[in-house]
Amino acid sequence: MRVITLITDFGLKDGNVGVMKGVIWGIAPRAQIADISHLITPQNVPEAALVLLRSALYFPPETIHLVVVDPGVGTARRAMAAQVGPYYYVGPDNGTLTLLWERARQLNWALSCVHLDQKQYWLPEVSHVFHGRDIFAPVAAHLANGTALSELGRHFDDPVLLDLPPPQRTAQGWRGEVIHVDHFGNLATNIRLEHLGQAENVVLRLAGVEVDGLVQTFGDRPPGSLVALYGSTGSLLVCMVNGNAAEHLRAGPGAVVEVILQKT
Amino acid sequence: MRVITLITDFGLKDGNVGVMKGVIWGIAPRAQIADISHLITPQNVPEAALVLLRSALYFPPETIHLVVVDPGVGTARRAMAAQVGPYYYVGPDNGTLTLLWERARQLNWALSCVHLDQKQYWLPEVSHVFHGRDIFAPVAAHLANGTALSELGRHFDDPVLLDLPPPQRTAQGWRGEVIHVDHFGNLATNIRLEHLGQAENVVLRLAGVEVDGLVQTFGDRPPGSLVALYGSTGSLLVCMVNGNAAEHLRAGPGAVVEVILQKT
Amino acid sequence: MRVITLITDFGLKDGNVGVMKGVIWGIAPRAQIADISHLITPQNVPEAALVLLRSALYFPPETIHLVVVDPGVGTARRAMAAQVGPYYYVGPDNGTLTLLWERARQLNWALSCVHLDQKQYWLPEVSHVFHGRDIFAPVAAHLANGTALSELGRHFDDPVLLDLPPPQRTAQGWRGEVIHVDHFGNLATNIRLEHLGQAENVVLRLAGVEVDGLVQTFGDRPPGSLVALYGSTGSLLVCMVNGNAAEHLRAGPGAVVEVILQKT
Repeated sequence: MRVITLITDFGLKDGNVGVMKGVIWGIAPRAQIADISHLITPQNVPEAALVLLRSALYFPPETIHLVVVDPGVGTARRAMAAQVGPYYYVGPDNGTLTLLWERARQLNWALSCVHLDQKQYWLPEVSHVFHGRDIFAPVAAHLANGTALSELGRHFDDPVLLDLPPPQRTAQGWRGEVIHVDHFGNLATNIRLEHLGQAENVVLRLAGVEVDGLVQTFGDRPPGSLVALYGSTGSLLVCMVNGNAAEHLRAGPGAVVEVILQKT
Repeated sequence: MRVITLITDFGLKDGNVGVMKGVIWGIAPRAQIADISHLITPQNVPEAALVLLRSALYFPPETIHLVVVDPGVGTARRAMAAQVGPYYYVGPDNGTLTLLWERARQLNWALSCVHLDQKQYWLPEVSHVFHGRDIFAPVAAHLANGTALSELGRHFDDPVLLDLPPPQRTAQGWRGEVIHVDHFGNLATNIRLEHLGQAENVVLRLAGVEVDGLVQTFGDRPPGSLVALYGSTGSLLVCMVNGNAAEHLRAGPGAVVEVILQKT
Repeated sequence: MRVITLITDFGLKDGNVGVMKGVIWGIAPRAQIADISHLITPQNVPEAALVLLRSALYFPPETIHLVVVDPGVGTARRAMAAQVGPYYYVGPDNGTLTLLWERARQLNWALSCVHLDQKQYWLPEVSHVFHGRDIFAPVAAHLANGTALSELGRHFDDPVLLDLPPPQRTAQGWRGEVIHVDHFGNLATNIRLEHLGQAENVVLRLAGVEVDGLVQTFGDRPPGSLVALYGSTGSLLVCMVNGNAAEHLRAGPGAVVEVILQKT
């Protein structure tokens, strides 16, 4: 049976995530459901896009990624489902898909979007405020049951894509920014392995401090050290060994990061 | 296989929820388990009753709702299981079932309670402090396996029901109170669609502010606006568009809400 | 199908736990997965060891306990899998297994460890910072599929075990310490039922207060009372009835606890 994953900003206390699972199992009783995150910052679509990108490809083919970070619920924003290579996306058409879409293009994957307009695949009553329960969960469940994407709505070609600025080349290296702070306080930047290539002799400036060189992993320096290294999906990270870099540096999303490539 | 849902005040860090799943799968290896909430405010039975009401009916028939918010664990309070129309409840007899019971009566559903006293359906050793693990999880698992309710204990007719005050009619409209603050800071009141009917020309007073009129959904007003609207289960909500009304108004459960019905 | 449990310090917002589930289901599509805790204090191996001990034995035989609290990821610390009687452990060789290992010895269970060195059971690419995804989740999935422990790496006999001090006998009773604070603020100590035996006429000193006698359960005293009682796994606890003892006493892990055995 197909896997359905869930990414939302619903939090964990009110039961809204559980309700979506109830709706899914009412339609697709054997669907396997994996929570990815329900602690996306409320209404933060770019954060949801990043968490989706980092998670999506580790799931088995035919997994359905259901993402509901939906400040436009009940307005004219489209509800959509998409095929992204071997995966499916279900959620609002508000840019959540941006980063996975870009990755899929790099991989030359097949891409296809439909505007969800076939109400026979929804709950009978649709509220104005909880399409996760009333539209997206039932649609994901029907996809899990094998319903074809084309049954769910009419095709369209122009999904909303966010304008997420890439890092900029500078005279000495690259300038980027912090795009995510994880649970450990590690600061992920939009500068990636692809930008720096094999360069290891670098100095990194962030929040008034300099970090010298790249390490391979946390344990390469003593506890309390600030280090720069590549995360498990290729982003340049700034971390404090066994500590919280974000708290220590008082830095978060949007903080400017400079990388200076040293001569060797 | 039947679904078992879990609502507790156990939190997520200590492993107590996981332990209950281990016990369930030891007895009913194929049970599907959905977490609804483990962040009920400690010992807050009315909150658990509300989360149960809002979630229960979205699950497939025969789902077993296991709810453990149990300040009286180990004392003389009864342990119970109940049939509530097509669903089952398992948990302490302390009022958690109140709102679902009321809804079931409105729906003319069959209702039946048993006092759990058949120890062969429990773990062999029962602690004084964790009946969720030792009594309720095993009983839910046996229900999932198809054990009849009547096997689990003797019938009784007087489950503990909470006295939850309904909103009051006033000269100008209704007076109620905030009963829940959700993850987004939306304030849910005990005034419902059934009370106001088709009225839309209303003024709502809460925490020293007035909100004029009802909207259909969040996106009907600009970010930062206070709005009143019906939530997805019919409660009148006060929300801040893309913001946190509870923090903004410094209001929470118990805050008085006045609705003034305007002449049209 | 075998159950896989997860204990990590990854938190719940970044999606790393979800990614591990994706990897598991890609290899073992029918594995049942139970989250035990993802809120272990970052890098706190003793806390993980305690949560594992308290949970492990409530799962069905052949359950695979996957624990990733791994400050040494990417360094020379061994990756390991172990058989612990009817259960399996997968994770870093950093002491997480200590308490479960001790319990297993008391039970005369079979014990066996392997150093994970067979890369055909890992993801094809292994990062320096996320072995939970790249090594441990795939290995757990292969165990769930029935792969023998001996296939996964070569045997070794000296797993890292933490030196966790037991309570000390004193002239008047026992001196121990707080080892865990749970979600409710209950303080668990390293003094256990085995130490005090049938003694009930005791005085307990902690953080400048005295608690007189042991009760059986929370409801034996009025709300707001400080009480001492045995928790569901046999630890001596200090709790506030319907309150938070840790906040009230401003006490946490490491706080000294004295038990004075009174003459009867």
